[in-house]
Amino acid sequence: MEVAETIRSVRSLVKAARKKGKKIGFVPTMGALHIGHISLIEAAKKGSDFVVVSIFVNPTQFGPGEDFEKYPRPFDTDLEICSKKDVEVVFAPTPEEMYKSENLTWVNVEKLTKGLCGQFRPEHFRGVATVCTKLFNIVMPDVAFFGQKDAQQAVVIKRMVADLNMPLEIVVCPTIRQPDGLTVSSRNKYLTVEQKKDAVLIYKSLQKCREMIKAGVTDVEQVIDQMQKVLLQIPSIKIEYVSIVDAKTLQPLEKAQGKVLAAVAVRIGQTRLIDNILVDVTKH
Amino acid sequence: MEVAETIRSVRSLVKAARKKGKKIGFVPTMGALHIGHISLIEAAKKGSDFVVVSIFVNPTQFGPGEDFEKYPRPFDTDLEICSKKDVEVVFAPTPEEMYKSENLTWVNVEKLTKGLCGQFRPEHFRGVATVCTKLFNIVMPDVAFFGQKDAQQAVVIKRMVADLNMPLEIVVCPTIRQPDGLTVSSRNKYLTVEQKKDAVLIYKSLQKCREMIKAGVTDVEQVIDQMQKVLLQIPSIKIEYVSIVDAKTLQPLEKAQGKVLAAVAVRIGQTRLIDNILVDVTKH
Repeated sequence: MEVAETIRSVRSLVKAARKKGKKIGFVPTMGALHIGHISLIEAAKKGSDFVVVSIFVNPTQFGPGEDFEKYPRPFDTDLEICSKKDVEVVFAPTPEEMYKSENLTWVNVEKLTKGLCGQFRPEHFRGVATVCTKLFNIVMPDVAFFGQKDAQQAVVIKRMVADLNMPLEIVVCPTIRQPDGLTVSSRNKYLTVEQKKDAVLIYKSLQKCREMIKAGVTDVEQVIDQMQKVLLQIPSIKIEYVSIVDAKTLQPLEKAQGKVLAAVAVRIGQTRLIDNILVDVTKH
Repeated sequence: MEVAETIRSVRSLVKAARKKGKKIGFVPTMGALHIGHISLIEAAKKGSDFVVVSIFVNPTQFGPGEDFEKYPRPFDTDLEICSKKDVEVVFAPTPEEMYKSENLTWVNVEKLTKGLCGQFRPEHFRGVATVCTKLFNIVMPDVAFFGQKDAQQAVVIKRMVADLNMPLEIVVCPTIRQPDGLTVSSRNKYLTVEQKKDAVLIYKSLQKCREMIKAGVTDVEQVIDQMQKVLLQIPSIKIEYVSIVDAKTLQPLEKAQGKVLAAVAVRIGQTRLIDNILVDVTKH
């Protein structure tokens, strides 16, 4: 496995692989790799011939007061994980390498970034779209892998790639959960044992949504109300949003129909946690 | 010469050329080709092995009330010119091919797009940056050619390419002028014979700027004042702006120093005309 710290070096490694006719797979990450990331790497290993994993805690997607400084950076462990998974190249640039001078150019995806997390993190998706554009232009992959866990991000990146005719395919992989249902997230490290138990209610609220839709309830207000009741059982959970939206447009729905995304964001203590499920109403 | 009307077909032509080891040169245009464009095509022929010229009147860079509808589209003549210049591929997509669904993703270059033409055409550079990103992603050239005539556009595109790590080089070619100094522009077609004579004052005002700086004048206000006096000789010329800015940052200067851009935009009748010169103050 090669570790590239510069744009020039990752480009030359990819170029050499492409010359050999290899299909380039790309997994962009902020490091602190866990089984969620590993599932993306495994999908990349299956779906391509040469896997590049980027490890870069991107400053431009964190808002003021967010956890950029304290975000975990267990770099040596991350490299070990990548090496064990037979990743071909880890691209681990410094912030200075990625943002050589003041960044004036931003990629904005309108409408899709207004609701859900975008309401609470107004510049987050601008930072994500911009850094993904930069990473795609640097690595030039044939296919890139994202997690369904960050549902809004996946929709935004897919739309950006389509709108800007970026020459790659986006694959979205299923959310990985602990046996108790809690999504695996780098931010789980911020939680105490007690808070981790409380956090299980997030998935329980999403299961409640699926059950109600299965049972034929289509009134979104009613479903959200019941989901909130699940979460409010534990006072340490502060709800940021509980939303049911169209899975493609991310626009709020009054009646559940077609493919819907049920998404939840809460704070437990200082930690912000998100989760979601996709429900195909037509199948119930 | 091949004429590609779809993204798929231009990509496959370029891919085949690249496989043969050819360097891809790209000249994005809105058609209505004149000797300015021809100079770009000639530069592309010299600087690469396989030249793609795009002809696309991009709706997203025209503001409401601007000349999108009446912009000249002499497609057959354009093809003839490209063919004579041994262009390998003309990419001429329809608006529907370029914008398949509502475009939600925009590339914004901040600061550089606020002044000069940006003041009067608030969404113009957003449209230009976005369509250039799309075209670069479709054609995937090694090098693209732009004219110094559109000075602000050239600075914006160069910065966008650097900020977003786009894998291509931008070459800016000199402004082409008629013997009387008037820049060659597709919009000159809108002018009457009389108006064309009046328009010569635009370049005269820029020459006045160069003379004054050569003579040691560095007070920008004084230079702009004299430039305006040149333009105001003819009442049919309505000044939009007369600016002297830093050539790289496009920020207004009080004292002319380093490399400066002197830029003028006027209206003659309904027609908007721009011109500029670069002056290296250190050389005088």
